[in-house]
Amino acid sequence: MIRTRFTEMFGVQHPIAQGGMQWVGTAELVSAVANAGALGFMTALTQPTPEALSKEIQRCRDMTDKPFGVNLTILPSITPPPYAEYRQAIIESGIKIVETAGYKPQEHVDEFKKHGVKVIHKCTAVRHALSAERMGVDAISIDGFECAGHPGEDDIPGLILIPAAADKVKIPMLASGGFGDGRGLVAALALGAEGINMGTRFCATQEAPIHDGIKQAIVANDERATELLFRSYRNTARVAKNKIAMEAVSIEREGKPFEAIAHLVKGVRGREGLQNGDPEHGIWTAGMIQGLIHDVPTVKQLVDRLVAEAEKIIDDRLKSMIA
Amino acid sequence: MIRTRFTEMFGVQHPIAQGGMQWVGTAELVSAVANAGALGFMTALTQPTPEALSKEIQRCRDMTDKPFGVNLTILPSITPPPYAEYRQAIIESGIKIVETAGYKPQEHVDEFKKHGVKVIHKCTAVRHALSAERMGVDAISIDGFECAGHPGEDDIPGLILIPAAADKVKIPMLASGGFGDGRGLVAALALGAEGINMGTRFCATQEAPIHDGIKQAIVANDERATELLFRSYRNTARVAKNKIAMEAVSIEREGKPFEAIAHLVKGVRGREGLQNGDPEHGIWTAGMIQGLIHDVPTVKQLVDRLVAEAEKIIDDRLKSMIA
Repeated sequence: MIRTRFTEMFGVQHPIAQGGMQWVGTAELVSAVANAGALGFMTALTQPTPEALSKEIQRCRDMTDKPFGVNLTILPSITPPPYAEYRQAIIESGIKIVETAGYKPQEHVDEFKKHGVKVIHKCTAVRHALSAERMGVDAISIDGFECAGHPGEDDIPGLILIPAAADKVKIPMLASGGFGDGRGLVAALALGAEGINMGTRFCATQEAPIHDGIKQAIVANDERATELLFRSYRNTARVAKNKIAMEAVSIEREGKPFEAIAHLVKGVRGREGLQNGDPEHGIWTAGMIQGLIHDVPTVKQLVDRLVAEAEKIIDDRLKSMIA
Repeated sequence: MIRTRFTEMFGVQHPIAQGGMQWVGTAELVSAVANAGALGFMTALTQPTPEALSKEIQRCRDMTDKPFGVNLTILPSITPPPYAEYRQAIIESGIKIVETAGYKPQEHVDEFKKHGVKVIHKCTAVRHALSAERMGVDAISIDGFECAGHPGEDDIPGLILIPAAADKVKIPMLASGGFGDGRGLVAALALGAEGINMGTRFCATQEAPIHDGIKQAIVANDERATELLFRSYRNTARVAKNKIAMEAVSIEREGKPFEAIAHLVKGVRGREGLQNGDPEHGIWTAGMIQGLIHDVPTVKQLVDRLVAEAEKIIDDRLKSMIA
């Protein structure tokens, strides 16, 4: 067992989180993560309505009696989803841990805190972590350049970003982006984090609601098999490298407007890429960690093995190096 | 004291190297690193002739009786420097440790090995590390995306690159790029490396032959204050962000040929950028680690403090987390 300020604060067994992943954070995966002693987050906007979210939370509760949370990601939009209603559904469902991500979460943080909900805010830069800390969140999930999805525009990897943030942020931090095994967990703890968040690694588990063809592609891909889309629009997304993603990158490099690639990349935010078994069919997100993913275990096998590996590194490898 | 396969193989006290840095790897810095118990490398091509290199090696020996090495970087060139003569000068000077970097070092590796010289090859990708291992080198220095100078074109940070390489490479590995304190050393050891190589961190020491104005700029800069030049020519170099570097990047983004920026960037490989005290005067290399550099200690202060911090992380922080 590895105990940190994170495990204490959130009342979970292991310093491991499965943060919000659109289309993936459903009751099946989140309950499996909770039952394995880690902290899983359902993804609010994966559910079509606030009512559907309430039902999904109840469905997750039917499968676990351990704590789990909900992710609420705030994206700027001309016709935004009803964030306040999703937030209300989360609070009324009795959820006590929320992961926020995205733009200007202050109003949501205030409401969650008022109702005794602990908030972890996910961000990709030291200055954003400090701003979230001032906003009153309980913990930070700091997301490095390696991550799947949105790494921000600074391109600072975890090796630098985690200690740089740890030097300034006082509340507990999870290290996110590029984590998938016990080596990474120990590295994160050494660098100043209190645990790790994993996305792509949890996608390649038996319980993830993703087609097995995609899970096998994650296993087959190496660390170089990702692409960065939307760089030129300053809304970078790391996705798995395939023919469509490469075509999108090359259209973007020609300096064409977003509309020119929109028809190619619609899969990025859709279920289709993940639920069609052909990894060439659509665009789907994946982090660099896929280079270190070699199997599709159950969530419990993954968590148990990861913690055991981390303990062994601390107890055997590192201790034996001290003369 | 932290003992690893690296300290054993090279007969040094600490698992820390100061690898080749053009214009910086002179007798002053390298002897200070050796006297601090780490492994310093002089940079062969910083000396104008093989004879000058022999003299500089002797000058370094006059300042330390501890082991040190020489870096030989092989760059493709129409009028290459006399590599074989530099190599001969290294061998005849009785140097027993060499760091190679760059293209097709087989001939040099063979000659060094024939003369009982141990070779560490520096590279930026798992496939290149495996190729160097097959070439017969004794150790690898694996250089991540965070590094100053040439990170390669794959953009894989140490958090991924080190364990990915450790899974395949059998000989000892140094982790390079993004290292500057005890936290990083423990992270590197946890990820599977046997020590760290530091460049930028050693530049901001009293003994580095660099103008104090540049050392103070490294201290002042944060982790975001670097730029990548020459991306479009597939010869990427990470340099400190200043007005000239930003101008070069913006000319490059317009798709102009190398000649259009050559007059701006001549400083990259010249002494001028480092030896003029104005950080805006020329282009000079720096890694992302500058975000974690807050002072200009002596080399010995740096090494002692780094090792003490690493020991404390292993003995106190990590051990206390195991329940």
